[in-house]
Amino acid sequence: MPIVTIEWKKGKVKIIDQTKLPLRLVHIYCEDVKTLREAIFSLKIRGAPALGIAGAFGVVLGMQNSSATDFPSFRRELEEVIDYLSSSRPTAVDLFWALKRMRNCAEKSKDQEIPRIKDALQEEALQIIQEDKTRSRQMAKEGAHLIKDGDRILTHCNAGALVTADYGTALGVIYRAKEEGKTVTVFADETRPLLQGARLTTWELLQAGVEVTLICDNMAGDLMQRRKIDKVLVGADRIASNGDVANKIGTYTVAVLAKENKVPFYVVCPISSIDLEIPSGKMIPIEQRNCQEVTEFGRKRVAPPGVKVYNPAFDITPARYVTGIITEKGMYRPPYRETLKEVKG
Amino acid sequence: MPIVTIEWKKGKVKIIDQTKLPLRLVHIYCEDVKTLREAIFSLKIRGAPALGIAGAFGVVLGMQNSSATDFPSFRRELEEVIDYLSSSRPTAVDLFWALKRMRNCAEKSKDQEIPRIKDALQEEALQIIQEDKTRSRQMAKEGAHLIKDGDRILTHCNAGALVTADYGTALGVIYRAKEEGKTVTVFADETRPLLQGARLTTWELLQAGVEVTLICDNMAGDLMQRRKIDKVLVGADRIASNGDVANKIGTYTVAVLAKENKVPFYVVCPISSIDLEIPSGKMIPIEQRNCQEVTEFGRKRVAPPGVKVYNPAFDITPARYVTGIITEKGMYRPPYRETLKEVKG
Repeated sequence: MPIVTIEWKKGKVKIIDQTKLPLRLVHIYCEDVKTLREAIFSLKIRGAPALGIAGAFGVVLGMQNSSATDFPSFRRELEEVIDYLSSSRPTAVDLFWALKRMRNCAEKSKDQEIPRIKDALQEEALQIIQEDKTRSRQMAKEGAHLIKDGDRILTHCNAGALVTADYGTALGVIYRAKEEGKTVTVFADETRPLLQGARLTTWELLQAGVEVTLICDNMAGDLMQRRKIDKVLVGADRIASNGDVANKIGTYTVAVLAKENKVPFYVVCPISSIDLEIPSGKMIPIEQRNCQEVTEFGRKRVAPPGVKVYNPAFDITPARYVTGIITEKGMYRPPYRETLKEVKG
Repeated sequence: MPIVTIEWKKGKVKIIDQTKLPLRLVHIYCEDVKTLREAIFSLKIRGAPALGIAGAFGVVLGMQNSSATDFPSFRRELEEVIDYLSSSRPTAVDLFWALKRMRNCAEKSKDQEIPRIKDALQEEALQIIQEDKTRSRQMAKEGAHLIKDGDRILTHCNAGALVTADYGTALGVIYRAKEEGKTVTVFADETRPLLQGARLTTWELLQAGVEVTLICDNMAGDLMQRRKIDKVLVGADRIASNGDVANKIGTYTVAVLAKENKVPFYVVCPISSIDLEIPSGKMIPIEQRNCQEVTEFGRKRVAPPGVKVYNPAFDITPARYVTGIITEKGMYRPPYRETLKEVKG
């Protein structure tokens, strides 16, 4: 059963509600930009590439009922919709990349009739989905070269089918390796506070028949120390031009452990996640999220009332911990400031 | 309000049920060894020094109704009770240390009347509690020397009043520093899967008026990278003669991060936690616990049925990551194989 994270269905955006996984597979049909933006904000849909697709379709939904009759009016509304979607989540550059594409698409079509511009936007969004499928498969192929039969791989967060239209980033590599006949086993850390590893990664992998063992985030070090991990594969929300990587909180910790234990640490992401306008990780905005994510489990308090909480959703892994960055165009190695230059943003 | 983790009250062992914290402060009165052993096994009482005290009183409870009339019979029953308690949890050496003391106490009294031996056992257990209080305070004093005004300290698991009869180990140092007029703020990592950090450490510290911020385990690295942590203070369940430290799972990870970020990493524990019979961490038995601790939160499943789980309760921090071991006899520094020799087991 293929996992379809997001698709365009008869004028609506149909998404899996990832907050309900793994216990229930529920879909939401977003008919307006407000519903889609709420879905992004509350992580019903998440993962950098998926945010790009969602952003693109958010523009389609936001503009489909526009009553503008001239391009300047249309463009003004478009900018409002783009701002509205931009403010949903700050860290993953793919969202901003997709919104920029949609803006460019409108600009290119500015001499056309408004209905034709709306069609062009829808085609652009569908094109973004199509490219996402193609690049997922290409990324997976590039990454699978590195995987040996018998490899035991540690993953963090969820960078699989649920972050893309199709195959995934880090997990796509694993799916491809499996298709090539390699036996791969996965250790998925649960990824507190929202448990994308426990809820989403294990679910995907079990569906795909990949052997997976769930651990708490604080067990990865022990496994590496016991030589039970051959490689680490993670996704990325944004990569700076020097190769610093912003990814789900806890990634930096895994990278430090990997280096200390001489375990290769690979980042798998599309070129759209690389932001050459940002010189280093220090400049990447880090989303802070609600403290209830930490103090409650399914509405049950675990921490005493009144305790302060720190809840950054991402951290920065400095480039020196990154063995390689696997993209649809191949793997980039250090020194990233040089090698990433050829990436066109 | 002083936190009394465990006490002897009119022939019963009164303990705080730590599984109910922080939402409810509930006490259990153990009238027989079976109840006390179950409390140990299910972590109603936990933390290495507290396990020693519980073990000692487990012997008192187990033998108080003995109908043995001669010492060989008494000793046979005693060995059964000691075995029974030994099998409750394998990693913390303090439990075995206390059981050994109780055995020695009975041996010393073997020429006396059985009722007198029972009294001697009770007195020995009370002595163990008294020594625990004294050494807690002494440990705290030794450790507080290291703490500077304004220090921001990272803790892991719970090594406070709830692991001893009184003051605690790692948190005792913080309480003492506060009494000395130093301002200390704490970052407590929640410590999955059982959340001793979220539930117990934050609770204790808030009670004591110490500023504490709760984080997920995977956020410690980010804090250290941002230079927000001045020192790490943890407890220990067992220290090998070479200085390798067995402590709550995740400690090794914190130690690696601390070394990478040049943050001093201190272990605070009583001499009874040092096991000179064990040459290195490899030989320390690591308790594995039920997978439901990972896959469920308060009885709600978060991971799909059928997923494998790895759930070790402890990990080993190699001696080279340990800046110092603070005990009631002072701080031991590397090379531990030499400096720990003077510790009498």
